[in-house]
Amino acid sequence: MTKRSVDMLILHGHVFTMEGSGVGAIDDGAVAIAGDSIVAAGPTPEILASYESQETIDASRFAVLPGLVDCHVHSPESLLRGVAQDVPDYMERAMAPFSRALRALDADLWLAGTRLNVLEALKAGTTTTMDYTTPYPGWAAFYERVGLRARLTPTINGLAPGAMSRAHGKPYEMDDAKGRRMLEAGLAFANRWDGAADGRLSVMIGPQAPDMLSRELLLEIKQIADQRNMMIHMHVAQGDREIAQMQARYGVRSIPFLEELGYLDERLFAVHLTEATDDEVRTLVKHGVSMGVCSGCIGLLDGIVPPAALFRSEGGVVGLGTDSASSNNAISLFNEMKLTALFNKIQAKRPDVIPAWEALRMATIEGARAIGLGDQIGSLEPGKQADLILVDLGQLNLAPTVRAPIRNIVPNLVYAATGHDVDSVIVAGQFLMRNRETLTADEAAIRSDAQAAAEEISRRVLADPQHKDLALLDAMRDGKL
Amino acid sequence: MTKRSVDMLILHGHVFTMEGSGVGAIDDGAVAIAGDSIVAAGPTPEILASYESQETIDASRFAVLPGLVDCHVHSPESLLRGVAQDVPDYMERAMAPFSRALRALDADLWLAGTRLNVLEALKAGTTTTMDYTTPYPGWAAFYERVGLRARLTPTINGLAPGAMSRAHGKPYEMDDAKGRRMLEAGLAFANRWDGAADGRLSVMIGPQAPDMLSRELLLEIKQIADQRNMMIHMHVAQGDREIAQMQARYGVRSIPFLEELGYLDERLFAVHLTEATDDEVRTLVKHGVSMGVCSGCIGLLDGIVPPAALFRSEGGVVGLGTDSASSNNAISLFNEMKLTALFNKIQAKRPDVIPAWEALRMATIEGARAIGLGDQIGSLEPGKQADLILVDLGQLNLAPTVRAPIRNIVPNLVYAATGHDVDSVIVAGQFLMRNRETLTADEAAIRSDAQAAAEEISRRVLADPQHKDLALLDAMRDGKL
Repeated sequence: MTKRSVDMLILHGHVFTMEGSGVGAIDDGAVAIAGDSIVAAGPTPEILASYESQETIDASRFAVLPGLVDCHVHSPESLLRGVAQDVPDYMERAMAPFSRALRALDADLWLAGTRLNVLEALKAGTTTTMDYTTPYPGWAAFYERVGLRARLTPTINGLAPGAMSRAHGKPYEMDDAKGRRMLEAGLAFANRWDGAADGRLSVMIGPQAPDMLSRELLLEIKQIADQRNMMIHMHVAQGDREIAQMQARYGVRSIPFLEELGYLDERLFAVHLTEATDDEVRTLVKHGVSMGVCSGCIGLLDGIVPPAALFRSEGGVVGLGTDSASSNNAISLFNEMKLTALFNKIQAKRPDVIPAWEALRMATIEGARAIGLGDQIGSLEPGKQADLILVDLGQLNLAPTVRAPIRNIVPNLVYAATGHDVDSVIVAGQFLMRNRETLTADEAAIRSDAQAAAEEISRRVLADPQHKDLALLDAMRDGKL
Repeated sequence: MTKRSVDMLILHGHVFTMEGSGVGAIDDGAVAIAGDSIVAAGPTPEILASYESQETIDASRFAVLPGLVDCHVHSPESLLRGVAQDVPDYMERAMAPFSRALRALDADLWLAGTRLNVLEALKAGTTTTMDYTTPYPGWAAFYERVGLRARLTPTINGLAPGAMSRAHGKPYEMDDAKGRRMLEAGLAFANRWDGAADGRLSVMIGPQAPDMLSRELLLEIKQIADQRNMMIHMHVAQGDREIAQMQARYGVRSIPFLEELGYLDERLFAVHLTEATDDEVRTLVKHGVSMGVCSGCIGLLDGIVPPAALFRSEGGVVGLGTDSASSNNAISLFNEMKLTALFNKIQAKRPDVIPAWEALRMATIEGARAIGLGDQIGSLEPGKQADLILVDLGQLNLAPTVRAPIRNIVPNLVYAATGHDVDSVIVAGQFLMRNRETLTADEAAIRSDAQAAAEEISRRVLADPQHKDLALLDAMRDGKL
């Protein structure tokens, strides 16, 4: 029998295909890759009987998994990592002058934040990211260059400038003209980038939140999304302020409002749902909406556990997101898997809620499905994109490897691993990192450019008189930071 | 002015001395070390004006902190990492045959577990560990050899063999003769090792839990601890089963029982307190008892957040513990800092509970105080032992470094760092790890010995007919592990 020649064979790994309803474990497993796609995954002897390749990778020390999917992140915010947390009302009391300074930066400094975010994510095993920001020059091109897969969402915000700080509990003042300009910019961005980089890049449409655009603009956006067959990426029920706004403006909470508008369908990827009631969760699931949960961010900022466990148990699809380094500090799906599993156990006071395999599914195949890429990525199946990671089980924090009568690898990936245990990252059949060395980006330059941009932000914040109101200045004075 | 010659100068670091009530930040800070002790810590120009050394370390890329203190761990259990979790009643339903197999192993295989645990901890920045187990040949000698600081606690358990599984809700059968033998073995161990390795090793006395020894033996142990001026390391109020036992036997809960016995004083280090009521917490604090909290373990096994925040707010001293790789999966104080801060925010539904600086204090100076070593370690002060770690702020997950108007380093150490970001570890003035290379232990041998020991456990578990009752066998069959 002649063997089919392929571009890469990964052999002798602890393979987890994530096919079916479990994790698809294959001891002494192999993956055959041709071009940007997976040709086969199976036991090594079977794969070697059918395929040959010039390039073979000995993965006997590694867990081989689909690359991780970060379903929600605002990448430029990486420049603000760690400057604000541990205080209630953090946006206003601890973050505001930093956010203003970041927004006022030139595009090249925003790009420094995106580059830091993307490289941090890549080194922690993320192969697909859903980046949500105002489009700026160089944003999409960087993803194209570095080789990550990305679903990019240009933000559409219809608030009048300064509306939130002026509102004092009354409905925000809207500015439809501004919102429409952002919509047009987003559509132009989609025209340019949707399907670019051999399909690695795609675009969603991003009305920021139900309380941040007028009813008219929301309806217009929904119509466009339907016409263009685009998914909608939206913060929904993300805080009590949003709910209060919706009540004040329409006399109805966010989710019934969106239902009435016709937003609730499989096209909607709803992020946070911090304030969603159990009935509202059921409504979302019933309509086929998918959920993004950012456990680390919401836990740190609000001490809240969003209803991901209920969403899943009702049959909904949930993906994990990091949100931002300014709100979560860490950009790692390993962090999110662990925190999602543990926070939900604590919420329910039961250890069997979100077991390890469910967390791993949320970070891979379910995340892929949640953002509409379930047919392309998220599992190691023939015909899917060759996005996969090798995790070093030889790290002491993951040792020993036990296979019988219980296989301990998935629990250790969720509860003991960190992003630093990822040895290699492959996207669309290409190594982006190997032996922890990034191959498509200059890590030292990214670090120093991010540092320079952060120092520029520091200067601007110090020059902003309102920085004197920062809640954490007390902690600085008291020697606690 | 002549300069004093010292053995090592660490220069230009982001130093956190943990002195006083905060974190003791010194930008461009330096530490002077002579022999096993810290001579001075301060701004680099001041230190360079007073001290000189052949060995200087450029720490400009690093945070320089006291080494981390793991207040509670059972080291041999590392061989069982990841084999049992995500099920209620995990000890009986998921762990029992593994525990039996571990207990039946020879001492050299227990040592394989301890070595794995110690090296994992060291590589994650732990410089002092409170290891709690039945003493076995080679245990203390390994700590002496590898150079870690350790408070070792020989377990004293006064239950008749098999008492727990036979009890069915009735009081456990006690075996005072067995308990007394374990007490004698523990005291012999203390005679040999307390103060050994130039004082790096010390010994506590370890009655396992209030329900696991007779009242008489507990009283005898307390008397000995007072006479010998030893601290007592004990699991207290660690589960509803313990409380039920105490009620059944004495008609009183664990903490009032210990109060009546005279156990509640500064000599007692009480671990877990999972079931302690608010009033019981106040009683413990009032008597000067210190607390060990194992957030990762208790969160994973029980979905419970122990009352560490209340214990601290009442004025008590709390240290962090990992407990074991079999119950927590990770042996990293970075993990415990983050989980303790986040779990307590969730418990209280408030983001200002356990801010970053409190978590860092619990992992350093407060942990040191909790275990009675506050005068020797836990902060970088003249005269204290030179136990410190260098954390690489150049890692992308910790970048950028911001110093004004808010210093972002401590929040990032707590919320974004992992043990892998630790570059170097110094204990008693000696490098144990440098540039992530361990200098006093053979990592490859430790990994392979642990793997061999784990495979021996697998064989024994497979040969134990009761392994067929393992709750996770269903998950194995269903392809979820």
